[in-house]
Order: sequence, then C-alpha cells, then structure tokens
Amino acid sequence: MAVIYERVALIGLGLIASSMCHAMRRAGLAGEIVGYAKSAETREIAREIGLCDQVCDSVVAAAKDADLVVLCVPVGAMEAVAQEIGPVLKPGCTISDVGSVKRTVIDVVSPHIPSGVHFVPAHPLAGTEHSGPRSGFAELFDNRFCILVPAQDADRDAVEKLAGLWRGMGAQVDEMDAEHHDLVLAVTSHTPHLIAYTMVGVADDLRRVTDSEVIKYSAAGFRDFTRIAASDPVMWRDVFLNNKEATLEILGRFTEELFALQRAIRQGDGDHLHDYFTRTRSIRRSIIEAGQDTDAPDFGRAKAKDV
Amino acid sequence: MAVIYERVALIGLGLIASSMCHAMRRAGLAGEIVGYAKSAETREIAREIGLCDQVCDSVVAAAKDADLVVLCVPVGAMEAVAQEIGPVLKPGCTISDVGSVKRTVIDVVSPHIPSGVHFVPAHPLAGTEHSGPRSGFAELFDNRFCILVPAQDADRDAVEKLAGLWRGMGAQVDEMDAEHHDLVLAVTSHTPHLIAYTMVGVADDLRRVTDSEVIKYSAAGFRDFTRIAASDPVMWRDVFLNNKEATLEILGRFTEELFALQRAIRQGDGDHLHDYFTRTRSIRRSIIEAGQDTDAPDFGRAKAKDV
Repeated sequence: MAVIYERVALIGLGLIASSMCHAMRRAGLAGEIVGYAKSAETREIAREIGLCDQVCDSVVAAAKDADLVVLCVPVGAMEAVAQEIGPVLKPGCTISDVGSVKRTVIDVVSPHIPSGVHFVPAHPLAGTEHSGPRSGFAELFDNRFCILVPAQDADRDAVEKLAGLWRGMGAQVDEMDAEHHDLVLAVTSHTPHLIAYTMVGVADDLRRVTDSEVIKYSAAGFRDFTRIAASDPVMWRDVFLNNKEATLEILGRFTEELFALQRAIRQGDGDHLHDYFTRTRSIRRSIIEAGQDTDAPDFGRAKAKDV
Repeated sequence: MAVIYERVALIGLGLIASSMCHAMRRAGLAGEIVGYAKSAETREIAREIGLCDQVCDSVVAAAKDADLVVLCVPVGAMEAVAQEIGPVLKPGCTISDVGSVKRTVIDVVSPHIPSGVHFVPAHPLAGTEHSGPRSGFAELFDNRFCILVPAQDADRDAVEKLAGLWRGMGAQVDEMDAEHHDLVLAVTSHTPHLIAYTMVGVADDLRRVTDSEVIKYSAAGFRDFTRIAASDPVMWRDVFLNNKEATLEILGRFTEELFALQRAIRQGDGDHLHDYFTRTRSIRRSIIEAGQDTDAPDFGRAKAKDV
C-alpha cells in the first residue's frame, strides 16, 4: 500500500497508539511515525522497543510538522493537549483522536484548532484489557469498525484520507454524528463495561464466597465479565464522566428490565424467563454472522490455553 | 486409562452429555455408554452421529443395568426422571447429575433413590452457548472444575469413583456442600447470566439504536455478554426458579453497587469511579494465573476468526 501521510504524530502511547504504529508499519501507510507520551517512563519504553521512528520529549515537538496528529490520550486529557499543540499545527494538516466519547471531545478540542487545519474525530472500536506501549499489536483493528464523526461542513478530502488510513490498518469505516455515536456506544460499550465492573466488584467484596472460589469457578460465566472489567481505569473514568446522559439513560433501561426479571424469579414466573432468554439468543447468531465474534467452542480458549 | 464403569447411562443428550460421551471415549473410561433423550428427534440425531454405543427409546431401558446413571436434563426435569428410573436402578450403582443447582436437585431426587444405590450429585462448570447432541466435544471439561456435592454420610468409595471419572474426562474435582455451592454459583454464574440476558434484551429493544448497529459495533464490549446470553433458555429458566434465594441475594448486592456507581456518574465523582475500576482489575490477573482464561489478545479471537 502507498504512504498516506508523510508524518504521523501519535500523542499518547498506550494500547491504541502502539497498535496503530504496528498496523501502519504493516501496510506502509506512514512515511514517518513520531510519538509522545506524558510519562517519561512510557517514552523510555517506547524508545527501547523501537515503537515509533522518533519519540519526542515534548508534545509540541511531536505535533509540529505532522501531516496527521492523532490524540490517543484519555478523553479527559484531550482539551489540554489540543490547547498546547493548536498553535503549532501545520496548515492543511489533519488532527484526529481515538476517544470513546465524541460530543465532549469535539466540544473541548474544536476551539483550539486553527482555521486551515482539519479536525476529523474518530473512534476505533477495538481493545483488549491491556494498556501501555508494549500492549499494541498490528491485528487489533482487523475487521473491527472505526467510526468517523466529521462535522457537517468537514473537508471531504481530509475525511476520505483518514478513512483510507483506517482501512489500511484493517478496519471498516463508518460515519455517524456525535450524538448518535455516543448513544450507540452507551449501549454496545459503556453500559456493558459499567455492569461488568459492578459484577466483578460485587464478587470481590462478598464475605461468604472467597476470592479464590470466584477465581477457580469463574469459567461458569463470570470470566466473560472480567476481561472488560480489567480495562484501563483512567480511560473508563473519563468515558463515564463525559458520556453521562446516554449512559444514565441506558442504565435506567437496564435496571428497569433487571427488576422485571428479578420479580419473575421471585414470583416463579418461568414463562416470562423462558421467553426473555429465547429472544436474546438470536442476537448472538447475528454477531457471529457479521464476523464480530467467533463461533469456536469456548471462544477458541481451548486452543489458546496451550499457548 | 482403565475402564471405571462398565455401563454408563446418560439421561438427556445435550451439550454436557454429548461432551461426556466424547471425553469418556477419549480416555476409555466406560465399557459401554447408553443414552436416552425425551425427544425422538434428538435420539435420531444421536444414533445418526454414533454418539453412544446404544440409544434407548425409554429412560427405564437406559438406566436399568447401568453402573452409573447421570441425569443430564434441565434441573426442572430431574424429579420426574428420578421417579421413573428409581425402581429399576441396579443395587450398588451410582446415580449422579450435572445440574447447575444442587439443593433443589438433591431435595427432589433423593426420595426416589432406593437404598443400596449411591446418589452423588455433581456439577461440571463448563459450557458453551450451543446445545444438543451435536454440540459436544471431548475437550469441554479439560482444566475446568467439577464440583461434587455428596451427602455427609455418602459412600466414600462411590464418591471417589465418580471423582476419578471426572478427572479422567480432564476436570479438576472439588467437594462442597449444597448451600455453599448454590451461593458460589449464584456469584460466578447465575447472576452474571441474568445480567448478560438483561443487557442483551435492552440492546435488542431500543428504538433509537438499531439491531444492526448493536451487532456491527458489538466488539466494543457488548459482544462479551452475548455468548452467555445465548445459552439454553430452558436450562436457565430452571436455574433461576431453583436457585431463587441465592440469586436474589446477589442481585440485591449488584443493584446496590450499580446504584452507587450510577450516582457517582451523575455527580461527576471521578475518584469513586477510578478507585472502583482499579480494584476490579486485579481479579482478572488472578483468573489468568489460575488457568481459567487465556491472556491472548482479544480472547484468541484474532486467530479463531480465520477458522
């Protein structure tokens, strides 16, 4: 594949940025990749493993002269970074981000973008429970979606170029407006994460069941919650603080439904339970057909455990 | 490995029974395996794929002469089966089950067990979202736990023999009393399943987010809920109807915690969220160390998707 951006600057060097490094290199999409991380330790590790072509000691040095700057920091840190780099952004360059929330990010970043610079917010829907510069891998975005959330008057060439980069990194690209993105993600990501965190917290906190029992017997279902409940705490704190309304709306729906099922259990209403459980089964099939999960027994874990 | 039981009868031929067939054959643990399923269609499929040595058309014919009878039917169907086969059980034989709930099963099955027959209740903690005689595979129990719940005055030889069978099928064996089992499973399995069912139901029912969006963007977290929410509806209806108290207790704790997090989001209390999310991270690590999950990126899905 051909080079899409001559110089790409990644601000923040965690799971997403480090995976972008590997994915861009796999396909030869960037002439040069420079990176910056706030923590000196992270920068040191990035240098040690040769993550980017160059690791800068200041965010300004990284962003200056870049043709594409991608903010890969927690949502709560985006504004400060935008404020700092705004004045040095090269005319005609594109600035993007990978935040899990879009309305707030757009609201706080936009004021700092000089005219002549294209702001194209983005959100790749991919992750693992690992973080840091060592956690990235080139395949993270393969067959996953990246949602672009450009303004209505965005420069279409800039949008298409960024879409091309994400496709080159293996992703499928969709476009959405910020409000709808935040609601869709509240359903498919934010509320599930909060629920998983809650369930794991409850299990960890019971006096009558020991942690070691929870761990030993986790394969009975609990295990599936622990992966997402192990995700980066700062990232998720910022997600909930910045997608408050949509998350609270979906949580409200969730507790309403949960109470109805709870009452069915209390009253011994087997028909209600059976009907509910039958309805939820079909959505799983659709997810597998859409290539967003595997049908392999036990999630392919049987194989993976020997690795 | 040597034959442990000359004749094993499996009553019900779903995921667990069919996996037991494959696992017993893999290690040569049974002289002969006979099976019975209530549905003629299931019996026909079992014959067609050669699942057991013999598929019987009556439960009595299957259980008679068996050295081990394992009830692999939903919890709500156990009593009727025990009542029917009780009179024909061979003196000295062992009867067991694989139900996810133990107190109720023991209460309804015990009265039908003639004296001289050993009842050793069991629960293998393993499963996939698939059901039926074609869904079984020999590796299902490898490195998973099987919990035996024998009465205090149980015949230890009979208990050890059954433990040997489960070990031979790849499982690790633990013993527990019925009440504790039901509480531990309410935490590690029953409540997580109910919550997953609820979340999937909510997502399926929203007007403002389409099903196709939920499916496309499921890799952002929601996906992890859908596997367990695709499990067999009859089995799970019976679990909740028969482990009512423990499930309602854990659900109560869950909603209490969820409300506290919900309030933290509403009030913008980032410290509370961050502390909570940090605490839940460590339990994941312990599960991987205990060999109950894989550390592979994306659950090993990246590899599995090419299959």
